[in-house]
Amino acid sequence: MITTEKKVRIGVMGASGYTGADLVRLLATHPRTEVRLLTANAHAGKPLAEVYPHLGSLDLPAMIRVEEADWSDIDVAFCGLPHGTTQEIIAALPAHLKVIDLSADFRLRDPQVYAQWYGHEHRAPALQPEAIYGLTEHYREAIRSARLVACPGCYPTAALLLLRPLVAGGLVDAGDIIIDAKSGASGSGRSVKESMLFCEVAEAMHPYNIASHRHAPEIEQELSLAAGADLLVNFTAHLIPMNRGELITAYVRLDKGASAADLRGALSEAYAGEPFVRVLPEGSVPGTRHVRGSNQCLLAVFADRVPGRAILVSTLDNLVKGSSGQAIQNMNLMLGLPETMGLEQQPLFP
Amino acid sequence: MITTEKKVRIGVMGASGYTGADLVRLLATHPRTEVRLLTANAHAGKPLAEVYPHLGSLDLPAMIRVEEADWSDIDVAFCGLPHGTTQEIIAALPAHLKVIDLSADFRLRDPQVYAQWYGHEHRAPALQPEAIYGLTEHYREAIRSARLVACPGCYPTAALLLLRPLVAGGLVDAGDIIIDAKSGASGSGRSVKESMLFCEVAEAMHPYNIASHRHAPEIEQELSLAAGADLLVNFTAHLIPMNRGELITAYVRLDKGASAADLRGALSEAYAGEPFVRVLPEGSVPGTRHVRGSNQCLLAVFADRVPGRAILVSTLDNLVKGSSGQAIQNMNLMLGLPETMGLEQQPLFP
Amino acid sequence: MITTEKKVRIGVMGASGYTGADLVRLLATHPRTEVRLLTANAHAGKPLAEVYPHLGSLDLPAMIRVEEADWSDIDVAFCGLPHGTTQEIIAALPAHLKVIDLSADFRLRDPQVYAQWYGHEHRAPALQPEAIYGLTEHYREAIRSARLVACPGCYPTAALLLLRPLVAGGLVDAGDIIIDAKSGASGSGRSVKESMLFCEVAEAMHPYNIASHRHAPEIEQELSLAAGADLLVNFTAHLIPMNRGELITAYVRLDKGASAADLRGALSEAYAGEPFVRVLPEGSVPGTRHVRGSNQCLLAVFADRVPGRAILVSTLDNLVKGSSGQAIQNMNLMLGLPETMGLEQQPLFP
Amino acid sequence: MITTEKKVRIGVMGASGYTGADLVRLLATHPRTEVRLLTANAHAGKPLAEVYPHLGSLDLPAMIRVEEADWSDIDVAFCGLPHGTTQEIIAALPAHLKVIDLSADFRLRDPQVYAQWYGHEHRAPALQPEAIYGLTEHYREAIRSARLVACPGCYPTAALLLLRPLVAGGLVDAGDIIIDAKSGASGSGRSVKESMLFCEVAEAMHPYNIASHRHAPEIEQELSLAAGADLLVNFTAHLIPMNRGELITAYVRLDKGASAADLRGALSEAYAGEPFVRVLPEGSVPGTRHVRGSNQCLLAVFADRVPGRAILVSTLDNLVKGSSGQAIQNMNLMLGLPETMGLEQQPLFP
Repeated sequence: MITTEKKVRIGVMGASGYTGADLVRLLATHPRTEVRLLTANAHAGKPLAEVYPHLGSLDLPAMIRVEEADWSDIDVAFCGLPHGTTQEIIAALPAHLKVIDLSADFRLRDPQVYAQWYGHEHRAPALQPEAIYGLTEHYREAIRSARLVACPGCYPTAALLLLRPLVAGGLVDAGDIIIDAKSGASGSGRSVKESMLFCEVAEAMHPYNIASHRHAPEIEQELSLAAGADLLVNFTAHLIPMNRGELITAYVRLDKGASAADLRGALSEAYAGEPFVRVLPEGSVPGTRHVRGSNQCLLAVFADRVPGRAILVSTLDNLVKGSSGQAIQNMNLMLGLPETMGLEQQPLFP
Repeated sequence: MITTEKKVRIGVMGASGYTGADLVRLLATHPRTEVRLLTANAHAGKPLAEVYPHLGSLDLPAMIRVEEADWSDIDVAFCGLPHGTTQEIIAALPAHLKVIDLSADFRLRDPQVYAQWYGHEHRAPALQPEAIYGLTEHYREAIRSARLVACPGCYPTAALLLLRPLVAGGLVDAGDIIIDAKSGASGSGRSVKESMLFCEVAEAMHPYNIASHRHAPEIEQELSLAAGADLLVNFTAHLIPMNRGELITAYVRLDKGASAADLRGALSEAYAGEPFVRVLPEGSVPGTRHVRGSNQCLLAVFADRVPGRAILVSTLDNLVKGSSGQAIQNMNLMLGLPETMGLEQQPLFP
Repeated sequence: MITTEKKVRIGVMGASGYTGADLVRLLATHPRTEVRLLTANAHAGKPLAEVYPHLGSLDLPAMIRVEEADWSDIDVAFCGLPHGTTQEIIAALPAHLKVIDLSADFRLRDPQVYAQWYGHEHRAPALQPEAIYGLTEHYREAIRSARLVACPGCYPTAALLLLRPLVAGGLVDAGDIIIDAKSGASGSGRSVKESMLFCEVAEAMHPYNIASHRHAPEIEQELSLAAGADLLVNFTAHLIPMNRGELITAYVRLDKGASAADLRGALSEAYAGEPFVRVLPEGSVPGTRHVRGSNQCLLAVFADRVPGRAILVSTLDNLVKGSSGQAIQNMNLMLGLPETMGLEQQPLFP
Repeated sequence: MITTEKKVRIGVMGASGYTGADLVRLLATHPRTEVRLLTANAHAGKPLAEVYPHLGSLDLPAMIRVEEADWSDIDVAFCGLPHGTTQEIIAALPAHLKVIDLSADFRLRDPQVYAQWYGHEHRAPALQPEAIYGLTEHYREAIRSARLVACPGCYPTAALLLLRPLVAGGLVDAGDIIIDAKSGASGSGRSVKESMLFCEVAEAMHPYNIASHRHAPEIEQELSLAAGADLLVNFTAHLIPMNRGELITAYVRLDKGASAADLRGALSEAYAGEPFVRVLPEGSVPGTRHVRGSNQCLLAVFADRVPGRAILVSTLDNLVKGSSGQAIQNMNLMLGLPETMGLEQQPLFP
């Protein structure tokens, strides 16, 4: 793709993680960006292709330590560092940079809640109020003019795209929401743990972080805002033997005499014209294979046999719409580019 | 294994299905049984090893058509035929046979409910009252003297072992039970469908038969009996990219001021001394890999962050404790053999 | 992607197969094509999204029967029909169409060899001489001016990109070539067979079509041309429990005193400047995960411990460079478009 | 299983590895053994069920440090320690113990070859001559009276069961043997490495340790003995996305005018009456799913299309016949027990 227009110069911090690699993958075919800086402290000095041979056909700068980065000729910084390390680093970045954070460090609006769930005080509380929560379809206008965007977690993206319009519309009982979440192994990142070895994950499944998953307060924060009152949700995550993909099954109690069709209608209305969120017609069942590798999110509503209840489903690729793809979508907004630019790759199936 | 005691002579109908094959696998190391008759109409005349080469080291009779079976020297008949075909066949069997049915044909006590869910009238309603529901741990005494046992479905086994003691004890709100179920692909049997091809299932997951799965009325039947009142449950099944294994996450509202610890205590008491049901200590998380290939079922209870709620987990191997293993456990009871005989294989991990 | 240039109008025959779906996936982001016609006789009248929900965000014509196709306003026809059905259909197409066949029907230059391997007489022998073998890197100039291109099989693409330069250069003993091939399950297509069920393929592997695989004569045809003499190869394929990806390990005897480094050098020279074929440096090991979903092919050469022998490796995505991607690469050549257009998607990992 | 006979008292060193766990799994249903001692230095003080919850229903001693082991009331010691640590430990064991080593430390008869491949001097060279190579079917008589048995590697077991009779019989050219080997991920053990994470292995495959795999000299040692002359083999291993299972495809040149049928006949004769090695009839194709979890090994011979060549296949479960199962088979021999005792579990399929 040759273009005579000026390229946006990109820096990626934490390039050696899976989200870093997927950012680079997607940016490689984005017609208006150019990756100019990659940091990865544990791999400083190496080419990215050494840790990610699948990106070996790209012409990229070698990885450096984040402390060595020269940001003067960079326009946009993506930050895919581990949780907890990002706050101070972002606070120290030059002001001309647009910053898109993929970590959890700026997602929770209340630093107290952050401290409670992440085990240490927030290290850039002054910056927190500036951070815009990057759930694109719901904060589009604020993102356009943001300097710092805190991209949602993968589960919160799937859950909130599904539930936020329904809670905001008062169509479901906000006090009785159960979210059973399933994710592929890439959600755990590339950190080396016995529990993530192939033999521990393949041909098996299990729940994890029961009643203690850090994505729960993030979902609660945003649904509470939608409901206009504090609420708690049941959120239970399960590890599925697949690389990519995330699916949420939510169990809700209908409010205001609403029917499943009403819920489907409310979602269809909320996402009419959205390029990446699709509400499926009655009876159509979403699966993770329908979104693999793409920036799409599919939503569906089913009436339950239990009167007054509905079953809701949301699915996306945790590394794309759940992370790197949504980050690029936000970048496009922040730069005034077409929102879908570089994100039109179709799902890879089979 | 050499024994001087007389062997129980076994016939297996529907030997070419996955449950038939798993019956033969387990019976092969059962010290007191001998497989003498195998039927599989689509494969009549072939050795079992032709359709299941993994059983090629066994010395077995060739498969025949069910109509050709001579039952005169058979003691126990296992029936692994497709749903709907079994009622007439079992009704026509000679009276000396003990019959253990793995299909759904005799699980529902009310023939009307059967007709509603399976789309045709029950074809042996006179036999239905005689059928004992083969959930071993809960109907042990009735099974001992039964002539016809209707083994539960795989999901109902997992769900009822988990929920029945809690509903019976009034510890959870029987009107607000949500069961999110996950199963490997063998639950679908060996029938050839596009949706079960490797490429459709691998590296992916999705819910199926939403609000219409035939295991729901079976769960409701037994929980209603336990509760002493009719109830409905939310039951939603998901297909997971693995061969074997089933895990149920149930979301319940605590009743009578009960705590998660009370639930765990009630389950521990209910299953004290049981050889195949284990209640895990607080904090221990069950996974399907812990039961693969074995007759074990693991149960666990977790307090939810939402006050007054708990998260329950049950896991088993759908082809063993969820089908063929439980069937053999029932056979042992019916024959007065040690209940664990032939079922002590440990799980296969990794 | 907005372009003011005229779009090339595409028809896809056999759109309901995996290669048809992958053609549509790739064409969806090709800036100069527009899919105007889809045929699939078994699904005529349905939208493609009904059989491939992952393509549900695209605006596509409904599938029709191939007999109903109006080719008058189509520029390029891709043909992904099952082997044996294509010859008469292509022979009947109007002359203005450029035709790119992904089946095996025009790959074998000698109709006798075709008849021997495919079990029936060639049905368009007059057309066969016109068909250009679509191994892009080796027949580029002929493809540019071709009307009918017969795209190679997936295994032949991987094998020939690896071996053709070495055989042509006399660097290996052309009479002693052993090709051990491994492929994911999508190579078998979407046809419904018991042997391709998830439970038969997952957590397992096995060879298939031993000494009888139809890709062998295709490899032999092209290597014989390169060698200037008829030769036979050992070709043995194995089914691997993955969706996509193909890897060939070839065992060769060095000729003319050549070393492994000489072979690597010859390959590097042969593919210098190629956008989709990369020869890895010494010691770098290719894997299918490095090419998944992309049009890339990776080649590598290793010295064996056995003196005078080398181990060669080639890997590609069977549905992309092994089928649909190479087909589009050929289309670009036939239309005078940049060869890489629409094919720059990076591999999807993890 | 109740027996009045005295139990053999077992100690397992390295119980926290996958082979240790599989030993315990198999011994749990062995009617004549009792596991009395488990060592695992990194997990000393913990119950085995803490690192292997799937074994949680067994009543086992807690793991201790190997230095703390009291061997006085143990009859048989299995040693599943990492390579290189075993020699000194075994040399220090009391003389009454029968020792079955599953590591590579005593497999290579020549300490020089050991030093060359394992990077350090042999630490118990005086003990090496006493070690019997535990390829059961070929060293049965020596194993019966052995005190120290060095069990073969998983690949050597598969390769030697296949090739040894053919090389010994002069039916194949011993100087031209190519072994393309494929293994599931458990072959790599439970050691925590980035390359063995689920996301690195799943939905992918690749060769590894090309021309440098330590199982090559072991195969060469035994085939050289069979041939009566030193030989080298090409041995190339590949990692397959499955937990268990190993399959070897060997490419050989026929000697002495032998045919594929002659080879099949020679193997059938060599293994007539063997309980765990089965030679398949012509046309029958072995797969890893046919042996999963069992102690069986399947062999098959196919004529190649290339005149004078044959394709040979061998498959086994790397953790059972390739490791723990064969170790128990050897134990049975050493103790005068029936050779198949405790090893009659059928393969787990699906």
